[in-house]
Amino acid sequence: VAGAAPDDLLAAARAGDRGALARLISIIERGGEEARRVGRAAHGPGIDATTVGITGAPGAGKSTLTNALLETVRKGGDRVAVLAIDPSSPFSGGALLGDRVRMGDHTLDDGVFIRSMATRGHVGGLAVAAPEAVRVLAATGYPWVILETVGVGQVEIDVMAQADTTVVVVTPGWGDAVQANKAGLMEIADVFVVNKADRPGADDAARDLERMLKMSPSAGWRPPVLCTTATTGAGVPEVWQAVVDHRAHLAAGGELRERRRRRAAEEVTRLVAARLLDRARAVTAGPRAAELADAVANGDIDPWTAADELLGE
Amino acid sequence: VAGAAPDDLLAAARAGDRGALARLISIIERGGEEARRVGRAAHGPGIDATTVGITGAPGAGKSTLTNALLETVRKGGDRVAVLAIDPSSPFSGGALLGDRVRMGDHTLDDGVFIRSMATRGHVGGLAVAAPEAVRVLAATGYPWVILETVGVGQVEIDVMAQADTTVVVVTPGWGDAVQANKAGLMEIADVFVVNKADRPGADDAARDLERMLKMSPSAGWRPPVLCTTATTGAGVPEVWQAVVDHRAHLAAGGELRERRRRRAAEEVTRLVAARLLDRARAVTAGPRAAELADAVANGDIDPWTAADELLGE
Repeated sequence: VAGAAPDDLLAAARAGDRGALARLISIIERGGEEARRVGRAAHGPGIDATTVGITGAPGAGKSTLTNALLETVRKGGDRVAVLAIDPSSPFSGGALLGDRVRMGDHTLDDGVFIRSMATRGHVGGLAVAAPEAVRVLAATGYPWVILETVGVGQVEIDVMAQADTTVVVVTPGWGDAVQANKAGLMEIADVFVVNKADRPGADDAARDLERMLKMSPSAGWRPPVLCTTATTGAGVPEVWQAVVDHRAHLAAGGELRERRRRRAAEEVTRLVAARLLDRARAVTAGPRAAELADAVANGDIDPWTAADELLGE
Repeated sequence: VAGAAPDDLLAAARAGDRGALARLISIIERGGEEARRVGRAAHGPGIDATTVGITGAPGAGKSTLTNALLETVRKGGDRVAVLAIDPSSPFSGGALLGDRVRMGDHTLDDGVFIRSMATRGHVGGLAVAAPEAVRVLAATGYPWVILETVGVGQVEIDVMAQADTTVVVVTPGWGDAVQANKAGLMEIADVFVVNKADRPGADDAARDLERMLKMSPSAGWRPPVLCTTATTGAGVPEVWQAVVDHRAHLAAGGELRERRRRRAAEEVTRLVAARLLDRARAVTAGPRAAELADAVANGDIDPWTAADELLGE
């Protein structure tokens, strides 16, 4: 399918060709005109997936929990995709997780698709690319898309803001609920999971989270706190049930529609910003920009004056 | 000093008025024209501070280590400031750490200044604001500025890229060195600290880090791996010595100058981008933008077409 048109790739992916699907996601990851063509082809009324965000500190066991959730979802018969959101380091570029390794037991199950996505140096890239990738997955027959993050920074929180349901994973060893609070995770969680619950301190961690949830005023949905041992699968079906319950809650109250409207507005804003950022990069790539940077480093001119000159203002 | 001109505020801050200094940082945090006036007033040849980044997962004890480092620096006689970089959650806004609490034993020591900085909803805000805040601190008599992050995401790594020396803090409980690697921390670390070294597993964590460092090729500086118990101060002077050694290494090899030149170029690029982003926000705030977002959410038009229309393209 090398060099194939977006429509052909989409048709192949719909027919179960996972290579074609992987190629579509790569195109979106790279951005630019080809990504735009894919996005347009995948877009249309009624094309929609439910997105489930899985986030938490590195080492909380998010990948293991995600893999265990896949088992549960597949037992119910639904097709499900995973996008592992991995803002790459500024120096290495590229996704760090091995998708092949991640596939594990699901290699032969074409109801499961797992893919890492990295920024590839694109400013705001993942926040722009993730919703497009979700749309492609929706258009090729995946009604559920799990968005899994590696870290817990601003990019990850931006991506999580695009999920219908956000699952925050903590561990007894990670520290206490205060840390989840500091990282801004309390406010985005729809479901809390204390993973590695076979370790000492799990009950304390769950109790701390419950206590903090009681202190924060909430109308409507109250995030459940669930304990899992993802390595054995203990507690995992309950997590998926909470996700399904939360989705039903959102749909019943009209919030699912409202969230999607807000996300569409955000997506358009990011696309406008990305277009303008491309212009900024073009402006600051020339030799005059290098001269001005030297002058700023020497303290000869201030950075705003340099920016003004480059923008021709 | 309310309503005072930037030059007056800077003069007051230079004379030891920490209220004036806090106000200058707030102005920079808010951005816009007033921030620009402050930045210009603080800018000039020879105005320079050495920046030390402290990063690591939430719960690693970064705040405690930073406070312990302040003791060491002050014993040597140098003035030192801390900027706690705290990309706020998309919903709450504002810094989560209490600066007053942080000041602790240093309340009466005017050689120490501690301030949290948040994004306040500014896209790319901290990466733009942090170097300006460092410049103001340099201009008001702080030769050392410690940049401390709350999380370990992309914004934090962007901010760390502005530090002369980056200290990465891990704990035995945090998981192993593989997690530091996943989060992109191995590549930015100039000094590794295994904090909470009184807990079991500290030696293993240090050994894992040493092993991973041996595998990654490095010309020149080889990051030391140091064990601390920040709560008691054990090992903390050695960390500061490593920071001082690293700075001397950078200066001797000419890399300090080269890093500053690169940072100046990056700062100008970000300012250009921020200016264009302001335009993007203006463009996407109107009623037509809301109509287009509805159309995108319904699948009637694709987001690129909406972005095109808003940009008048």
